[in-house]
Amino acid sequence: MCRWNAYFGHPVLIDELLFRTEHGLIDQSLHARMGVETTNGDGFGLGWYTDNNRSDPCRYRGVTPAWNDANLRDLTSHIESPLFLAHIRATTGTPVQQTNCHPFRHGRWLFVHNGVINGYPQMRRDLVLAIEPSLFGAIAGSTDSEVLFYLALTFGLEDDPLLAMERAVGFVETTAKSHGVENPVQMTVGFSNGERLWGVRYSSEHRSRTLFVSEDVSALRQLHPGNPRLQQLTDEARAIVSEPLSDLPGVWLEVPESTALIIGPGDFERRPFHPQQP
Amino acid sequence: MCRWNAYFGHPVLIDELLFRTEHGLIDQSLHARMGVETTNGDGFGLGWYTDNNRSDPCRYRGVTPAWNDANLRDLTSHIESPLFLAHIRATTGTPVQQTNCHPFRHGRWLFVHNGVINGYPQMRRDLVLAIEPSLFGAIAGSTDSEVLFYLALTFGLEDDPLLAMERAVGFVETTAKSHGVENPVQMTVGFSNGERLWGVRYSSEHRSRTLFVSEDVSALRQLHPGNPRLQQLTDEARAIVSEPLSDLPGVWLEVPESTALIIGPGDFERRPFHPQQP
Amino acid sequence: MCRWNAYFGHPVLIDELLFRTEHGLIDQSLHARMGVETTNGDGFGLGWYTDNNRSDPCRYRGVTPAWNDANLRDLTSHIESPLFLAHIRATTGTPVQQTNCHPFRHGRWLFVHNGVINGYPQMRRDLVLAIEPSLFGAIAGSTDSEVLFYLALTFGLEDDPLLAMERAVGFVETTAKSHGVENPVQMTVGFSNGERLWGVRYSSEHRSRTLFVSEDVSALRQLHPGNPRLQQLTDEARAIVSEPLSDLPGVWLEVPESTALIIGPGDFERRPFHPQQP
Amino acid sequence: MCRWNAYFGHPVLIDELLFRTEHGLIDQSLHARMGVETTNGDGFGLGWYTDNNRSDPCRYRGVTPAWNDANLRDLTSHIESPLFLAHIRATTGTPVQQTNCHPFRHGRWLFVHNGVINGYPQMRRDLVLAIEPSLFGAIAGSTDSEVLFYLALTFGLEDDPLLAMERAVGFVETTAKSHGVENPVQMTVGFSNGERLWGVRYSSEHRSRTLFVSEDVSALRQLHPGNPRLQQLTDEARAIVSEPLSDLPGVWLEVPESTALIIGPGDFERRPFHPQQP
Repeated sequence: MCRWNAYFGHPVLIDELLFRTEHGLIDQSLHARMGVETTNGDGFGLGWYTDNNRSDPCRYRGVTPAWNDANLRDLTSHIESPLFLAHIRATTGTPVQQTNCHPFRHGRWLFVHNGVINGYPQMRRDLVLAIEPSLFGAIAGSTDSEVLFYLALTFGLEDDPLLAMERAVGFVETTAKSHGVENPVQMTVGFSNGERLWGVRYSSEHRSRTLFVSEDVSALRQLHPGNPRLQQLTDEARAIVSEPLSDLPGVWLEVPESTALIIGPGDFERRPFHPQQP
Repeated sequence: MCRWNAYFGHPVLIDELLFRTEHGLIDQSLHARMGVETTNGDGFGLGWYTDNNRSDPCRYRGVTPAWNDANLRDLTSHIESPLFLAHIRATTGTPVQQTNCHPFRHGRWLFVHNGVINGYPQMRRDLVLAIEPSLFGAIAGSTDSEVLFYLALTFGLEDDPLLAMERAVGFVETTAKSHGVENPVQMTVGFSNGERLWGVRYSSEHRSRTLFVSEDVSALRQLHPGNPRLQQLTDEARAIVSEPLSDLPGVWLEVPESTALIIGPGDFERRPFHPQQP
Repeated sequence: MCRWNAYFGHPVLIDELLFRTEHGLIDQSLHARMGVETTNGDGFGLGWYTDNNRSDPCRYRGVTPAWNDANLRDLTSHIESPLFLAHIRATTGTPVQQTNCHPFRHGRWLFVHNGVINGYPQMRRDLVLAIEPSLFGAIAGSTDSEVLFYLALTFGLEDDPLLAMERAVGFVETTAKSHGVENPVQMTVGFSNGERLWGVRYSSEHRSRTLFVSEDVSALRQLHPGNPRLQQLTDEARAIVSEPLSDLPGVWLEVPESTALIIGPGDFERRPFHPQQP
Repeated sequence: MCRWNAYFGHPVLIDELLFRTEHGLIDQSLHARMGVETTNGDGFGLGWYTDNNRSDPCRYRGVTPAWNDANLRDLTSHIESPLFLAHIRATTGTPVQQTNCHPFRHGRWLFVHNGVINGYPQMRRDLVLAIEPSLFGAIAGSTDSEVLFYLALTFGLEDDPLLAMERAVGFVETTAKSHGVENPVQMTVGFSNGERLWGVRYSSEHRSRTLFVSEDVSALRQLHPGNPRLQQLTDEARAIVSEPLSDLPGVWLEVPESTALIIGPGDFERRPFHPQQP
C-alpha cells in the first residue's frame, strides 16, 4: 500500500502539494485515511520535469520515511516544476531500498504505482521473462511495480501509453490465470513523458484503491484562497492524488473504477480502462 | 513520543519480546495504542548484556523504522540476553540520526527515555553547562534525553542511581522555573548497569506516559503457554514496557505515577520517586 | 573489486580479524594494496555461525563504508564465532543497497565473492533464466555475485559444493561464449554451510584476484604473540583472506590459480578447480 | 581531512565542477592527491543559491560516500546555480551523520571547512560556551567545524565576515593556549551569503591544507575548450578548490598561507588573514 500525488500545470514549488497542504502527501505518510495501512514509511520518491527540460526528468528517492527526510523538505521548498510525481511507500514485502522506490524512470518516462500484484512471488519469473530482452538489464530493483512498468514499456508505452498499460495488465491477468491466482492486479498508476500526465484506477476485482482528481483549477484556488502562487495557476492545472488533500466538499472528484485520465496542455480526458491481450 | 521495553531474567532470544509477541515493540512502532503518536518510525536502538559480559553492553541502533530493518530482525532472532533495553523513537524535533537513538550508553550503563523536556530549546544551554566537564566531550547527539542521562551521571548515577535521577529531574525543574517553563519533565525512563534494571514513571504535571511491569514470571508464562523457552524462565524474570504486549487481563501491572522500579537478582522493589535539589 | 575474510576454528571475537589486526579487513576497506581499487567503501556484510547454531547463520549488512559503521564495531567486539565470512564491497556498477551486499544467504549457506562476471549486462537474462524456478523468487538484489550463488545452488551446492561451483562457472563460461564475451569469470569465492568452509581462486583468463590462507595455527599465533585468545586456538583454526593481514613473512600462503580449499574439523585440503559443463 | 569546491559566476550545471571535470570533487572523494587521507567517504554536502533566490540557499547532504550517491548525480546534472559550495568529508572522529556534514547553514549563510581544531575534545566545552546564547539552540551536530562557524557568527560574520573569522580563529587560539594545546587551527574555509564568496587558507603552524583559485575565466575556458556552456561564462566567474581539478599548468593559482579571497560581482580580492582577539 502506498500513496502518490501528481501535478500538471503552471510551475509551482513542489512542497505546495507535498508539505504545505492540509493532509498533503507527507501528512499521509504518517496518517493515511483511506489505505489498507495508515503508515507509509518505507521510503519515498519524487520525479520532476522542468520548463527547460521536459525530456530528462530529475529524481530524488530515499529509504527513510518522507516525513523525517531533511533533504526532501529542502529540495521541495526550492524547486519549481510544471509536472511532477511523488510517491510514499508501504512495502508489501520487498526490501526497502532506493531501487524499489517509485517513481521508476526510463528515458523521459516516470511511473508510480499504488497497489500490488497478488501472487507475485509465484508469477515473478514468468512476468520478468516477458520483458523485452533489451530492457531486461535496466531492471534495478525487486518490486512488482517496476516489473509492471517494464511490461508496459515492452508492450508499447512510448507509442500508445494507455493501450500499452491495458496490455501489461492483461498479460498479468492471463499469467495469473495459468497460476491459479485470483484478482491479481490491484492498482492506481500515474505516469508521464514530460508532455502529458496519465492516471489509471483499476483492479481485477473492481474494488480498486482510491484515486481522485482536482475538479479544475478553481478547485485548487478554493483550497488555498490565500495562496498568491495558486491564484496565478493556468486553467489547465490539475492534480491527481491517492487521497484528497483536504476535506473541502466539491473539490476532489473520485476517479471511477476502471478509468484512465489524460491530462495535457489544454486537454483533460477520461476514458474507460480495459485490460487487453498483448 | 517513543516506546521502550526492557527485560531482566533468564537469557531469552531478544525477538521474543520484540517481534514474536502480540503487540510487541515492533508492532508498536507501527501501531502504538497509548501514545501521543501512533507511529514510532524515527529510528530505534537495542542495548544488551550477555551472561559472559555484564560490564560492557553491546548496542545496535538504526535510523530507519524498526519494522523494516532487516538487520534488527536477524540480530534479535540470534542473540540471547539476560538483560536488554529496546527503544523505538518518534522524534519531538531533533534530527533522526544514530547519535539521537536510544539507548544512550556510558561505560556499563544503558539508558532509554520516553517523553520530552518541555522548553528544551530555551533551556538547552543551561542544562548542558551543568554537565560535569569531564563528561561533556562524550555527548554525541542533540536530544533532551541524552542530556538528561548525562545530568543523572553528573549527579551520581553510578553511586546511587535513583537519587541521581531524582536530582537530575529536580535540576531540570528548577532550571525550568527560572525560564518560566511549566511542567518541564515528561518521562518514563529505563536504565541498567548490567546487574540491575531500573524503571521510573514521572512527570512534573503528574500525568505521565504509561508504563507497565509484568506481574511475575507466571504472567509471562500465561502470555505464551506454548513457548517452551518461557516455561523455563527463572522466577525473577520481569519485563518493563511502555505498553502492554497483549491484552490478557491480569498480566501487566500499571506502574503508578511518580514511582520507581528496581529489578535485580532475587529482588523486585517499588519506591516513590521525588525530584531532589542536586 | 571487493575484499573478504573468512575464519574457521575455535570461537574468536570477530573483530580480532576485522579490526584489531594489522591491515585487517577494515583497514583494507580504506587502503587495499592488492586490488584494482584501493577503496572498498560501497557497503559491507558479515555472516556468522555460533557454536549453538550451525544451521542458521546470522547476518549484518550495511550500505555505508565498513570503516565508519559504529554498529559493526560494536557487534564484532561482542560476538564470538567459530566460523564467519566478512566482505567489503567496491561496486562494479550495481547499486549500493543491502540486497547487493555479501554474504548472500540461502538456508544454512553463506557466500561471498570478489571479482566480476564480465559481460554481465548482456548475459544477465540468460543467467537468471537458468536458475531453478523454485529459487528464482529468493533473488533479492541485482548483482552478478548473487546470480553466481543461485546458479551454484541450482547445480547442487548443497550436495556437492565444489562440483556445483565448477558447474556454475562452466555454465557462465558457456553462456559467455554464445555472447562473444571473453574471459567472463573473475573470482575468488568463499562459502560455508556451518560445518565446513570452502574457498576458491579462479578466473577464465587464469590471472585471478589474490587469495591467501594462513599456514596453520602457529602462523596466527606468530601474528599475535601477545594475544592470549589466539594462543588458545585449536590447531585446526584457519583464515582465508583476499589480502594478507600483515607483512610477516611465512604466515600467509598464496592460494594457487584454479585451486579450491576445504577447511573442516580436523581437515584441510587443497584441490584443483576446473569448470564443468552442468 | 576533507575536500571542498566553490563556484561563483554565470549559472552552470553543478556537475560541471563535481563530476564532469578531470579530477573533480567526486573523483577526489576516492583519490585525493594532496590530502592527509586519500579517501573522503564519510558523507558529503552541497549548498547552492539560485538566480531567483540569493537569500535562502538550498542544501543536500548525505552520509554515504559522494561517489556512490545516485541522488547527488541526478540533482547536480539537473540544477543550475551561479554560486555553490560542495564538500566531501573524511571524519577526524565525530560521527558520520547529516548534521555533521558541510555546508553548515545559518539564514542565508553557507560554510565549509577542511581541516581540524586540534585539542577539540578538551576545548569543546569552552568553545561551545562562547557561542552567543541565542545561536546555541541551532547547533545540530557535534563537529569542530560547526562550532567554528557559530563562533564566526557570534563574532559578527554577518557584518564583517573576514574580521569575524579572524576573531573566531583568534578565540580558538587563545583558548588553546589556556589548555596547553599547540597549533590548534588547521583550516581552509569557504563561506557565502549569496552575494559574495569568501575563501581562507590559514593554520596556526603556517603549514596549511592546500587551496587553489582559478586564474580567471579564461583559465576555466582553457580547461574545457569543448564545453559551450563554459565558453559563455562571464569574466567574473571563479572557482575555489582544495585540489586543482586537472593538471593543466597555469590554470590554478595556489592561495598563499594566511590569505583570504573575496569574490563578488566584478570583484576579486586577496587579503592577508590574521587572527584577532575578539
